Amino acid sequence: MHNFEYCNPTRLVFGRGTIQRIGPMIASDGIHKVLLVAGGGSIRENGVYQAVVQSLTASGVAAMEEWGVQPNPQLGRARLLVQRARDEQVEAVLAVGGGSVIDMAKCVAAGVTTQDLWDLFDGKALVEHALPVFAVLTMSSTGSEMDPVAFITNEAEHRKCRLESPLLYPRASIVDPLVQTSLPWRQTINGAVSALSHVMATYLVGSFEETALALNEALMRTIIRMVDRLQADHGDYGARANLAWATTLAMNGVSSVGIEDGDWSACRIEAAISAMHPEVAHGAGLAVILPAWTAWMQEGNPGQFQRWARAVWNAGTVDEGVAAMKTALQHWGAPTALGDIGVTAGELRDVAFAALAEGPLGRLRTLTAREVVELLKEVL
Amino acid sequence: MHNFEYCNPTRLVFGRGTIQRIGPMIASDGIHKVLLVAGGGSIRENGVYQAVVQSLTASGVAAMEEWGVQPNPQLGRARLLVQRARDEQVEAVLAVGGGSVIDMAKCVAAGVTTQDLWDLFDGKALVEHALPVFAVLTMSSTGSEMDPVAFITNEAEHRKCRLESPLLYPRASIVDPLVQTSLPWRQTINGAVSALSHVMATYLVGSFEETALALNEALMRTIIRMVDRLQADHGDYGARANLAWATTLAMNGVSSVGIEDGDWSACRIEAAISAMHPEVAHGAGLAVILPAWTAWMQEGNPGQFQRWARAVWNAGTVDEGVAAMKTALQHWGAPTALGDIGVTAGELRDVAFAALAEGPLGRLRTLTAREVVELLKEVL
Repeated sequence: MHNFEYCNPTRLVFGRGTIQRIGPMIASDGIHKVLLVAGGGSIRENGVYQAVVQSLTASGVAAMEEWGVQPNPQLGRARLLVQRARDEQVEAVLAVGGGSVIDMAKCVAAGVTTQDLWDLFDGKALVEHALPVFAVLTMSSTGSEMDPVAFITNEAEHRKCRLESPLLYPRASIVDPLVQTSLPWRQTINGAVSALSHVMATYLVGSFEETALALNEALMRTIIRMVDRLQADHGDYGARANLAWATTLAMNGVSSVGIEDGDWSACRIEAAISAMHPEVAHGAGLAVILPAWTAWMQEGNPGQFQRWARAVWNAGTVDEGVAAMKTALQHWGAPTALGDIGVTAGELRDVAFAALAEGPLGRLRTLTAREVVELLKEVL
Repeated sequence: MHNFEYCNPTRLVFGRGTIQRIGPMIASDGIHKVLLVAGGGSIRENGVYQAVVQSLTASGVAAMEEWGVQPNPQLGRARLLVQRARDEQVEAVLAVGGGSVIDMAKCVAAGVTTQDLWDLFDGKALVEHALPVFAVLTMSSTGSEMDPVAFITNEAEHRKCRLESPLLYPRASIVDPLVQTSLPWRQTINGAVSALSHVMATYLVGSFEETALALNEALMRTIIRMVDRLQADHGDYGARANLAWATTLAMNGVSSVGIEDGDWSACRIEAAISAMHPEVAHGAGLAVILPAWTAWMQEGNPGQFQRWARAVWNAGTVDEGVAAMKTALQHWGAPTALGDIGVTAGELRDVAFAALAEGPLGRLRTLTAREVVELLKEVL
């Protein structure tokens, strides 16, 4: 078990009917003006937007609105939002949406006091100040509501890059699982698959970290069971709530401390796909890659992969575990081939080179560009 | 799954060789003078005290020392320490020891700005300010290093009472599992049994909180396995570290949110014993009570008790699960009868009445004084 330091200061408010608390929480921090960042119009349809605005108004918090943040938020748009935040002199950024919207809010919060936002991503500057970030989560997925990380896509360079700073933990996040009942089914699946793959990235590298490994097994099994229950009954609040909480725990750091840094190669390959196809959600790309990736990487830590197969899928071998995962993904209706998400054979080399652009790929084993192409060919 | 709010701001620094970080952490908060609270002399013998003082001195932090805090810290001593903290105008309280020492530090931190410390415990005053608390943990047990709770014994009234406030989360805690290698074996067991019983108090009340229940099962199984490994090899650092981390997680709140308040009747019965016998460690008293308590309470939530027996002890029935727990406790050398911890038949009525003094006892089922006596007779 490795030494670690853990501190997660985000206040998480979780449950039915909790959205109305956003205004008082922001106001109690002495904040009177926020930049409200949102995605498409779905939060108007499910009532989340109205509840947020009502709560902000009642608490005397003014909101400047910025709509239309897409999955895999882009640098160009982020720069515009940073400028808006400066011009309006907002005191905080409020994300109302899923992981992409929260990531965008974090970028804006960090960018306001930096000459150019991109400097933070390419290492020319550090996050020294950031506006407070608040979030109302509408889709459980990457854990951005309770982590210090943001991803952004540099659309000019086709690169999806990562920013991490303790200053980027949201000050408070609200998770009302009830509003996720109205999500399109594929978004529920995308979120669950993202969480599952992120747990696997850490878990599969482990070996002696019994406490963390046992927690991760509990999270993986729970995510799978809750998706199965939701597929049988989309309106099952208990399953929705437990899936949401497991998803947050999967990525808020508590379940991975003590394990050395995970193997994020599946994530990076998917990020390369999403950078070329911004319409592809992270979870959708991961669903396609994950079974083949698992089979490829097993030689890097065979005992742990066998433990995964047994503990998570009740399978006797890694191959049987991978097959069980593939069956589950198909059963849930997740995309299972690159063709399903619009990636063609002609793009595989570009994906591979983009995945390798940030340096060596893979901890369990090092993947060359040729191997990435071979892996992807298996799921064409 | 119930609505919840979760925020745990404690910075946990965990691992071998981390004690030397205490000075810089305190100094970086602008603190130059602390009250150092300690128990007996064991921290002189294992080098922890020397490492702490060296680190404080190197960082320019002066320490006023108060030694001799006993298990189940007492109100009278706490009042004296509060006065010392006021007289010396310390800026923070640093606990170097186990759960009792940290609890004492929290009481002092909260008491400094209150007319009388006891007012906070009997509801006459609220914690409105508290000095920052830092901790160097030397024995994993009750999770006090990462929770907002302190217990104190009012020795005049033979009552052990509880104080909770968000202001009592330690600002930072250091857990170096290596220093626990030198603990007497019974203290390791006491800590593990405390953690186990605290997880059970919450878990056994649950039913629909899949994520939390799965996490709790992971923690219980890990605690049991790590104690087994440590019994085979007291010097097994991995087992020691994983036990320590599981113990912290068992009580830092993250594993119990979403479950309605637990059934703390075993804890309260034990607190009544410890109030009469301050030399009895919480975990020692719990080890004696726990199997009988489990058998008694099962009718309150039979399905969940069966799940516990199966998931934690691989047992077909609750009775078999209880028997397996009893066997494990005996195997570890924990006390299994009241006689082992100095409690006599003549005291049972007093224990029962003291346990009931704070109001109705038990959520799974309500225990009368007569029933508490009957339960205790089973473990005389």
